[in-house]
Order: sequence, then C-alpha cells, then structure tokens
Amino acid sequence: MGIVVQKYGGSSVATAEHIKAVAERVRKAREAGHGLVVVVSAMGKTTDRLLALANEVSSEPSPREIDQLLSTGERQSVALLAMALHDRGVAATSLTGPQAGMETSGRYGSGVISTIRTERMKKLLDEGQVVIVAGFQGMNAVGDVVTLGRGGSDTTAVALAAALYAERCEIYTDVTGVFTADPRIVPSARRIPLISPAEMAEMAWRGAKVMHPRAVELGALYGVEIHVRSSFSEEPGTVIREGSNLERLETRETLAGIVHDLDVSRITLTGIRTGPGTMSRVFTPLAESGVSVDVIVESAPKEGASDIAFTVGRGDYRDALRLAGEVAGSLGGEVEGEEELGKVSVVGTGMLNRPGYAARMFASLGKAGIPIRMVSTSEIQVTCVLPAERVEEAVRILHEDFELEGMEERDV
Amino acid sequence: MGIVVQKYGGSSVATAEHIKAVAERVRKAREAGHGLVVVVSAMGKTTDRLLALANEVSSEPSPREIDQLLSTGERQSVALLAMALHDRGVAATSLTGPQAGMETSGRYGSGVISTIRTERMKKLLDEGQVVIVAGFQGMNAVGDVVTLGRGGSDTTAVALAAALYAERCEIYTDVTGVFTADPRIVPSARRIPLISPAEMAEMAWRGAKVMHPRAVELGALYGVEIHVRSSFSEEPGTVIREGSNLERLETRETLAGIVHDLDVSRITLTGIRTGPGTMSRVFTPLAESGVSVDVIVESAPKEGASDIAFTVGRGDYRDALRLAGEVAGSLGGEVEGEEELGKVSVVGTGMLNRPGYAARMFASLGKAGIPIRMVSTSEIQVTCVLPAERVEEAVRILHEDFELEGMEERDV
Repeated sequence: MGIVVQKYGGSSVATAEHIKAVAERVRKAREAGHGLVVVVSAMGKTTDRLLALANEVSSEPSPREIDQLLSTGERQSVALLAMALHDRGVAATSLTGPQAGMETSGRYGSGVISTIRTERMKKLLDEGQVVIVAGFQGMNAVGDVVTLGRGGSDTTAVALAAALYAERCEIYTDVTGVFTADPRIVPSARRIPLISPAEMAEMAWRGAKVMHPRAVELGALYGVEIHVRSSFSEEPGTVIREGSNLERLETRETLAGIVHDLDVSRITLTGIRTGPGTMSRVFTPLAESGVSVDVIVESAPKEGASDIAFTVGRGDYRDALRLAGEVAGSLGGEVEGEEELGKVSVVGTGMLNRPGYAARMFASLGKAGIPIRMVSTSEIQVTCVLPAERVEEAVRILHEDFELEGMEERDV
Repeated sequence: MGIVVQKYGGSSVATAEHIKAVAERVRKAREAGHGLVVVVSAMGKTTDRLLALANEVSSEPSPREIDQLLSTGERQSVALLAMALHDRGVAATSLTGPQAGMETSGRYGSGVISTIRTERMKKLLDEGQVVIVAGFQGMNAVGDVVTLGRGGSDTTAVALAAALYAERCEIYTDVTGVFTADPRIVPSARRIPLISPAEMAEMAWRGAKVMHPRAVELGALYGVEIHVRSSFSEEPGTVIREGSNLERLETRETLAGIVHDLDVSRITLTGIRTGPGTMSRVFTPLAESGVSVDVIVESAPKEGASDIAFTVGRGDYRDALRLAGEVAGSLGGEVEGEEELGKVSVVGTGMLNRPGYAARMFASLGKAGIPIRMVSTSEIQVTCVLPAERVEEAVRILHEDFELEGMEERDV
C-alpha cells in the first residue's frame, strides 16, 4: 500500500487526551497497512501564548527570534505524539522540520519550502516507522529555523505528500469538511463531498477557514488528492480532487458554495489624476509596508480623473488609509475609507458555462435591500463587499436563492 | 577585554519580567566591554510541566522523544532573552545547542559534551553580538538532540567557558553564593567568598544545591574560574578558584562548610560469603539498573562472612532493596534497609593537614545523642549518615562546634 500523509491541527492535539486520541487514529491507519507520515501543529493555544510572551519582553520582536521561539510548539507536539504511539506499540520517530529535510528560502516568518530532502523519512518508512514531522517550519541556508507563515502546517503536509508521492493527504480539523456555507449561519448548509482544487482555493481565499489556500494551490500544482476530515469523528469529510467539478456537474450541482469573511475594510481614492504608472504609485507603498490588498476596483476615468477602491484586512486599515492618503494628495485627489465591512462570495466552476450568476446575486441582495459596496468577479466566483452587519443575512439569502440546501448529499 | 560566560537558571528566567531583568544585567555587562556568551535554562517549571505531559501520554516515554520534547524549553528562553536584549539596543543572537556547535556522545537524557565547534559563536562575538546559548543540550552523530542530564546548563556554561578561553564563568542562581551551611537551618551561616574547586565539588556531591558537581569538576579540569552569584542582587557571591583554599588557610579558615542531604536510604547485606568478585556481584546489577550508589562500607570479614552497606537516593530504594536481596540470597546472607535517612558532611581542604576532624565530628554528634549509621571519609571531607529527622539538628551543632559562624566574611 502507498504512503498517506495526515495533518492534525492545533485543536486536534490541544491536550494530552487529544494527543492520545490522535495516536489511536494513527494506529488504526497504520494497521490498515499505509506508510504513514503525520504532520502536527502546536498544541491548542501554544503559539498565541508564546507570541504573548514575545510581546511582553519586546516591543518589536525580531523575526528570526520569533521563528526560533514559535518553532518549539510543533516540536513539543511531535515528541508527545511519538510517545503516545510507542505506548500503543506503534514504531514511530519524531522529526523537527530541519530533521525532516525541509529546506526553505524567503524571509523569517514567511518561509517558502524550496527543497525537501526525503532520505531520512524514506529510511524510517522503510523500517515500518510512522514518521511524525513538526509542521510550519524548515531550515534556511545558514542553519536557522524559519517558519512558513499562516497555513504553514497545511502547506507542510501537502508538500510532503507531493515529495513522497503519497496516495493522498488527509487534513484533520475540528469540522467535518467543507460546507456550502458556514453551518453556524445557515443550519441547512450541507457538506460538499467532492470539490475541485480551483474551487477550494477560491473558497479558502474568500473566507472558508478549513484549509489554507496556499496549501490547496500547492496540492493542485502537484496533483495531490486532499481529504478534509474531522479528527473527532469518523465522517467522510470533503475530497479535493481534480475533475471533481465535472462529476458534480453531471448531477447539476453547479455551485460549490457560499463563503464569507468579516475581516474587510475599504479604502477609496477619489478624483485622482490617472495615467501610466498610477496603479503602481498607489500600490507599491502598500506592498512595501507589508499591507495585503484584496479586491481592487478602478472606475472609468472622467475628465482625466478617476476613483480607485481596494479592500484590506481590518488590522491594516489605519496604515493603508495613511499611505493611500499621501498618494491621493500627490495626485490631486482625496481619500476616504470604511472600516466595518465584510464580503460574500458565490464560488463554483459551474459559472464557467452558465453566465448570469453575478446578475442573479445582485438581484437577490437588492431585493433584500442589502447595499453592495464593491464587486469582484473571476471565472469561478463572484464576490460582493457589503456592510459587515448585513453579511450573515446575505449568506442565508444566497444559500436559499441558489438552492444549495436542496441538493442531496452524496458520499464519494 | 576577554570573554565572560554567564549562566541563568530556570528561576532567573521564570517570567517575562524576570527575563527583562536578566536582559538588563546582560546589557550592563556588555556595556562594561566584555565579550558575552549567555547560557539559559528553561523558564521556571517548564521542564517539569513537559515531563508531566510526557507521562500523561505514555507510561514509559522513550528517551529520544523526551530529549526532543525537553530541549524546547531552553530554546524558548534563548529566543525570548534575545528579543529582550534587542529591545534594549543590544545586538544578540540566540543559538540552540546544535546551532552553538555542542556535539555530544552518550545516551539520550545523559549526553556528554564531546566537542564544541565554536566557529559560529566566535563569528558572532567578533561582530560584537551577545551570543545566547540554550543550555542542557547538544546534537549527536545522527543529528538528534540529546540532553545533558542533571546540571546540564551549568555544564554547558563551564564547557563553553573552557572552549572559548573565557576569563570566567558566572553562574546566576536564586541564592547569593555558597554558604557555610544552609541558611534556612543555620541563620548565622556565612557566605564563603572563596572556595577551591575540590572543596566545591565535595560540597556539591554531598548536598549543596547551588551548582552541579559535574560542572565544578569540569571547571577544575580546565582551570575555569567560576563565580556563583544571585541574579536578584548585586552581592559579590562565591568565587571558585584553584588556590582559594590556601588563601583561606592563611586566615585560619580551614573548613569550607557543612552540607547535608535528606535524600538518602541505606541497604545492608549481612552475613554474606565474601571472596574475590563479591563487590562486583553486589554492585554490577545495581549499575545495570541505573541505580546510583553513594557511600559504600564493608565490614571486616568474620569467619568468612561479612556485611556490606551502601546508600542510594530514596527514589531508588525499592529497586535497590530487591536487587540486593537477590544477591544476598545467592551469597548465603540477608538484606535489610532503612529508607528515611540523611547525611551530614564537613568539607574543607584544611583537613588535609590537620587530622582529628572526624573524631571531633563524632564527639559532637555523640554528645547530642545523634546516632551515626555509616561513615565515609576522604582527604577533604567526613560524611556521617544519620536518621533523617536528626539532620537539621546535626547541621546546627556542627556549624557551632566547628566555629564556622565566628569567622569574618571577607570579599574577594
């Protein structure tokens, strides 16, 4: 049988009891005959606790030392899981990121996996050992530990699955899969049994928290089949696989789901002189300050002046407003902003063949009197930026109007 | 100016506030112009907390995984101290044991430093950086982390001082130095300003907790001058230096101090047939089971049979009693034991020239009606094993009878 990579997030290993439950699940998978590589995150709130300590001792902790500090959380988890497996008679060896051969390039805090030297893992797998790898970390050229940034453990798991030509990568989390909408908002939301990587990536970028979009895209790039499942149940979860959209289309399930995000602010530069290089003048200072910009809309120029609007996360709102204000001033315009926004997206490859989804979305929202502040579309999604307090209502309306709850749940 | 190695124990870095206080002390030392290497232990009770987790997930955690787990504690401390130094404008870089070039041989959990590759530390020192090294750990030949066992951070600091030809090694702890007796038992006990490595090692082996004897002996071997000081005050502490006993002898301070230990049990094999190889038959099974034996006394054989008594720590009492019982049976004898004992030692190089210390000690204890269960002597110490509940009384009596409190405290 082939190799399976499993990844358990922080909530799955939050306590000694949780770790023992994970060990039990790993034991069963091993018994089923798979070669197993298990990636683990830091226990529960460990990373937050360590970051709080860092902020107590320093007003501006250095990225290298933050990585040195945070990487210890995953290292504790792997050692504890190895012990729990030994206690169940399962041969297992824990490896830190560097020991697992994860080599990175890029900056501290946002490293990128450049190479995975798989020799040690392969040797352990050949010996019949379960290999437990600390997620979220690798080693750079000078021998320092570098963390991979957000979604780093998901990325570690998918990259390992690609490097080891694994049959699949199983992502264990605290929900039972990917849903047509957040079940806390839409009780009739159903689990999506099959989804294509492109749809999953769009859903993840647009607000679905279940898996990090970087990891989904990496999986798509290397053709890794990903299963998202709950570590607390035996339910089948969601399978992310190329071609899943075609299988679904046959059953007329043209949309994957509705996703939303409440961490949105909008900034608008009005009446600025435009010309070649204007966009670069607006967005370069933001990029240099590390502000991540999401939706961008430029209005058609009137009398040589136009408006440019974009969204940022709320944490970046103040910085972005100041930087955009400076640029607007130098271009003869003004800046205004709105902090408390959200966005709702309709995602699905079905849109590729059937136009009119955007119009149908605007009509649904308009009928309910929900104002749309900005719109962004791509081949497989339509996103509307709305006032934050109308987001949940919009999700419910769209889930109903697009008849997502009526579909039958099928298992793969 | 030369290099100074400083070591801060777990109680000195127990909280963010403590770490900031240590950073302030390091900043001052750096300002004074020293090249600084700082060794840190894990924060407060971190190691105990991690061990408790290990015992929750496994009934018998593997030594390799224990080392993988425990080594993270020191790694957190070094990163946090580096951040706190940056906040004070001090250039500093944290290094894990492996990054600092600490190579070890020996078993997991009780590694021995075999080589220190000092290149990276020297480069950082040349750049004017404070180098912060995670204590208690190194890397073995297969690239795994190995901890150094008890007193490992002290040993790390002294070994680094030797490898870097440091001017001195400063051990910061929660007491203001080495005392003539435990001040909690003898309020008139005084700080010993100067002590020889041989005396300090005897005191450490006999129960003084301030520094680990392995580290003292390593310092003596490489001629490292060690200063034991409090991290909470500016008091001068105790200097451990070759020749200190001679300086002290001139002022008639022939004894260093009285030390005691309450972690003692005694096992006696009675009426066993003796001959060549008897001692080996008794003690080999204990050594193989990892039981550490301290004082050994063999009575003169009578009619081909003799008694052998030895002490062990209380944690090993049950195992040792069982093993000794098996051997005693096979040699025609019996075994008996006493669990709740302690020992009191009088230590000082002054004994070398002036016999009669042992007799004087027995007389003092006898006058007070304190029974002596066993005696062990070497050139510079006399140790009596006593019932545990009489130990404190014995320490007070001996401190008074040997006139230790009458001596004047001099600073170095």
